[in-house]
Amino acid sequence: MSSPALITLDLIGIFVFAISGALVAVRKDFDIFGVLVLAGATGLGGGFLRDVLIDATPPAALADWRYLMVPVAAGLVTFRFHPAVGRMERGVNVFDAFGLALFCVTGALKAAEFGLGPVPAALMGMVTGIGGGVIRDLLTDRVPVVFRGELYATPALTGAAIAVVGHRLDQPELLSALVGAFVCLVWRLLAIRRNWHAPLPRGPASV
Amino acid sequence: MSSPALITLDLIGIFVFAISGALVAVRKDFDIFGVLVLAGATGLGGGFLRDVLIDATPPAALADWRYLMVPVAAGLVTFRFHPAVGRMERGVNVFDAFGLALFCVTGALKAAEFGLGPVPAALMGMVTGIGGGVIRDLLTDRVPVVFRGELYATPALTGAAIAVVGHRLDQPELLSALVGAFVCLVWRLLAIRRNWHAPLPRGPASV
Amino acid sequence: MSSPALITLDLIGIFVFAISGALVAVRKDFDIFGVLVLAGATGLGGGFLRDVLIDATPPAALADWRYLMVPVAAGLVTFRFHPAVGRMERGVNVFDAFGLALFCVTGALKAAEFGLGPVPAALMGMVTGIGGGVIRDLLTDRVPVVFRGELYATPALTGAAIAVVGHRLDQPELLSALVGAFVCLVWRLLAIRRNWHAPLPRGPASV
Repeated sequence: MSSPALITLDLIGIFVFAISGALVAVRKDFDIFGVLVLAGATGLGGGFLRDVLIDATPPAALADWRYLMVPVAAGLVTFRFHPAVGRMERGVNVFDAFGLALFCVTGALKAAEFGLGPVPAALMGMVTGIGGGVIRDLLTDRVPVVFRGELYATPALTGAAIAVVGHRLDQPELLSALVGAFVCLVWRLLAIRRNWHAPLPRGPASV
Repeated sequence: MSSPALITLDLIGIFVFAISGALVAVRKDFDIFGVLVLAGATGLGGGFLRDVLIDATPPAALADWRYLMVPVAAGLVTFRFHPAVGRMERGVNVFDAFGLALFCVTGALKAAEFGLGPVPAALMGMVTGIGGGVIRDLLTDRVPVVFRGELYATPALTGAAIAVVGHRLDQPELLSALVGAFVCLVWRLLAIRRNWHAPLPRGPASV
Repeated sequence: MSSPALITLDLIGIFVFAISGALVAVRKDFDIFGVLVLAGATGLGGGFLRDVLIDATPPAALADWRYLMVPVAAGLVTFRFHPAVGRMERGVNVFDAFGLALFCVTGALKAAEFGLGPVPAALMGMVTGIGGGVIRDLLTDRVPVVFRGELYATPALTGAAIAVVGHRLDQPELLSALVGAFVCLVWRLLAIRRNWHAPLPRGPASV
């Protein structure tokens, strides 16, 4: 994660996740500080979770002021211009898809750099990607979208796995990251547009 | 926790907790990935919480592939055979009791090995035991069962305390663990069967 | 935080936060152990969050028995005398305001001592102050009070910033802490009494 290109991807991921969190906060009638806190928790939560688990503490967000300014900016922009921000895109889910794609690869590559094996590294990439959204949904009393019928965790795990495999094969880091993120993003956006769902349990659930 | 016997107990605990999480997920109509994520969060969450707090990071589950395979297997088995898994036992609560009994002793012994005093070590055992279930209930929007009238935290704390006292008296680790787990398990199962409850506050709560 | 005065402030903060958690638990009909666990999670949760993020693990609460005894005492007192505890004060919110004021300054000063810059240190002070209450509200299925219209995070951030600035200007630690805590407390209590609110988003939120 020392490469400037990866840090840039990470900051963009924080920005779009923070916007998704701020939009949910606005729709729940949170005040300005609620919007900023939810933007921060959504944008930085997945990375905090990863850094605490792989022992990369204190997290970059607490040592580098850019990481703190990004969700603040996203929150203020969303608070002031939320009708336009909402119109500009198909809302929370699309911003969320971009954040997912960027975080799954940067999370996986950071975990690999901290010495985790390929399988745990890919898994930490998935956790980084889905963590912020789960925290956002917990804090706003929604059932996390990741769990129910949405095709969400698989694209993240796949993107993370691609980045890790590229890293093991000594491909350029930025290339692995972009390919993994692209696959995750396209898959997730298609799942939203075409309403793809993951398999549900068969048979009656009332056991 | 270096002893193979304790690692085996830990893995069994992860397995039964993961099944309890997967059963809740199936009943909430989660998809296959929601089932796997909830199995993983329930099975590994208490141990992650403990490892982060006692600074044993990265957690064993991220360094040892067996820890990751166990909840995946439990989730897949439950997803495929959930009516049978549900019938086989009295459901979530019984699996949960086994997980509680195993985790409270392995968690306490690991905390003691990392240098915590006996009281905090027993407390960390309790946290390890109840953490996964609390995370499971938070993620599925249920009020954590541990808090309301269920006799749950006391058996865990007692089992953890027995294991810690055995450790301080230089008893064999596996023996202390099994006695502590046995006391916790029997107490918890009796509480389920006989509907024992912990004391409730006296007087009107509407102060 | 090595100074006895700061440790005393921290312990008082834990005590009043633990009472606020125990009062919520009593009102939700939790049993005695639910009351104790919620008292502990509310009193210690913000500090645990801070210590894990700034890598001050294991948290003081696991190394120093006084930190564990305080929420237990607060929980037992509230469980036994809850009508009087509730009458004595205007309830949860006032205890909560005292805890917020104390934790935002002790949290910020501890983060500064662990080498964080002034902006992240002030932010960690805010996180320490609001963390316990957010955990309390999550565990009892309430929308965290911090997010919705309550003027809550700003006083905490302001108090934390005052403490950090005093620390940077080499003022006596206890003086900086008391001034920051006082500003936070007065502001928060006025916000409760006069029903001050933070700005809400303008325009229709249904974007």
